[in-house]
Amino acid sequence: MENFTDRLISVIRSKSSCVVVGLDPYFKLIPGTFKQKFSAFQRNALEYAARIILEFNREVIDLIAPLVGIIKPQIAFYELYGWWGIWAYAETIKYAKQKGLIVIGDVKRGDIPSTAEAYANAHIGKVHIDNFIEAPFFVDAITVNPFFGSDGLYPFIQVAKEHNKGIFILVKTSNSLSAEFQNLTFGDKKLYEIIAEKTNEWGKDLVGKNGYSAIGAVVGATFSNEITILRKIMPAAYFLVPGYGTQGASIDNLKYCFNPDGLGAIINASRSLLYAYNISPWKEKYDMEAWKEATREAVIRMNEDIRKIAGINLK
Amino acid sequence: MENFTDRLISVIRSKSSCVVVGLDPYFKLIPGTFKQKFSAFQRNALEYAARIILEFNREVIDLIAPLVGIIKPQIAFYELYGWWGIWAYAETIKYAKQKGLIVIGDVKRGDIPSTAEAYANAHIGKVHIDNFIEAPFFVDAITVNPFFGSDGLYPFIQVAKEHNKGIFILVKTSNSLSAEFQNLTFGDKKLYEIIAEKTNEWGKDLVGKNGYSAIGAVVGATFSNEITILRKIMPAAYFLVPGYGTQGASIDNLKYCFNPDGLGAIINASRSLLYAYNISPWKEKYDMEAWKEATREAVIRMNEDIRKIAGINLK
Repeated sequence: MENFTDRLISVIRSKSSCVVVGLDPYFKLIPGTFKQKFSAFQRNALEYAARIILEFNREVIDLIAPLVGIIKPQIAFYELYGWWGIWAYAETIKYAKQKGLIVIGDVKRGDIPSTAEAYANAHIGKVHIDNFIEAPFFVDAITVNPFFGSDGLYPFIQVAKEHNKGIFILVKTSNSLSAEFQNLTFGDKKLYEIIAEKTNEWGKDLVGKNGYSAIGAVVGATFSNEITILRKIMPAAYFLVPGYGTQGASIDNLKYCFNPDGLGAIINASRSLLYAYNISPWKEKYDMEAWKEATREAVIRMNEDIRKIAGINLK
Repeated sequence: MENFTDRLISVIRSKSSCVVVGLDPYFKLIPGTFKQKFSAFQRNALEYAARIILEFNREVIDLIAPLVGIIKPQIAFYELYGWWGIWAYAETIKYAKQKGLIVIGDVKRGDIPSTAEAYANAHIGKVHIDNFIEAPFFVDAITVNPFFGSDGLYPFIQVAKEHNKGIFILVKTSNSLSAEFQNLTFGDKKLYEIIAEKTNEWGKDLVGKNGYSAIGAVVGATFSNEITILRKIMPAAYFLVPGYGTQGASIDNLKYCFNPDGLGAIINASRSLLYAYNISPWKEKYDMEAWKEATREAVIRMNEDIRKIAGINLK
């Protein structure tokens, strides 16, 4: 049976791209031409922001869908606009699914078992309401936080299995002080190595026909030696790699995320693509009105950069 | 100046209660008499569930407000109903604030700095939308996950400071396998001790007039020796203690959470109070129709139990 990574790999091959576009709305960076159309909603500022964000996302999705097969909305940037923001999050997911994109909900949830089950059913599962069954968000995969331990993760794994979805467990994050707890050494192993070993174990029952598990890992691209170690510990885990672009990860490090088959990693960029008009080298070429051209060119460039790194199977 | 814990202590003293009522809606446990009133909304099951949950919460809040000063909605049980659920979460917070309750948003968020800032502003801060400023949820405090390290927590601490709010950092969680990562030993210290030391450090600048910091800790009440250690490492941290009731923490362990001043801890129970009609000894006495009597009696009993443990200052 096809699992989440098999569907992921299909999309990667059909678009010849393992880029993930992070749909992280920064309201003040959304071009002003958008905002003008929505002035009627200004009596409710949260609704106003949410409607602009949704419309912007739809235009971004239309723009990138021929180039890229995966998006990753970061829910924090939607929660920032209250329940209207979550409405925009849900509608963005719906629109992206209609366009055939794989959607990874970057929610980084984690909690005790009964609560983790609620989160899992909310985001990658379904909810029973009397005789009705609803799928509140139903993205293809979500990110989860391992701090609670195995029993906090089992409900996510179980719901992923039940609905044939994926999860990406935080193993080593991309922030500059991630080593503070994640690199603490217990015996001869670092915390992130211990979490990686568990992730590999948890994923063993959920390997698809391409050899990759539905249980993946978030691996920041900050240190090449760490990536190499993690690639070895978790050969069957798909890596979701943040840090390209604005967060400044070295492009050279990214190559260690891929397996020899040219697969095994998807690379995310958010602000550096969505607001490319505002960032060199695009801002020297395009003004805000031409934001779509800047974004398109930034996505094409990133696709080319990552294709070179990932190797043969994407060509 | 009064900080979050000073306001918390005022409420604790005025109600003579350091109980937190966890507002975790379990739809199927909400008495059927409620659901009948909302049958008109059954064309949208998520809206139907959300409206019932909100109405149930309002009745619970009215019922408990004379007895208890603090509620803690767990956002997972609202996300389970999509953006309609988050609407119910926001409206529940509004209603509780109108009734003078302290609201702790149990969101357990954690992420890289730019994302953590969005979460912090969403839940305990404000958002700027052109010339408007909105406060999407604006609870009194939230729970946060420390896995990312200091730079992932600073935005929460900063926003808490700016808006005079509180945060509770996960130090040792109440789930049965929490030891798996949290009790790993680095040198001569366990991970939870290292996080506790950091929590104590981060909180030093935010101590209020009662001697407690706006930076508190989530401490599961599972092992008495751990609680004793943590109480010593973080003397100025308020402990948010889950695990009483359904999770089965020993009532004896709870006493180690309190300081000699009878303060320093708030004890949460959720299902064992909200659905007391369904649990011994109340279910032998009350049927579902009399759920309010069961809940009221369960809250009164818990208040009495905790008062005995906390000591003199609550009497």
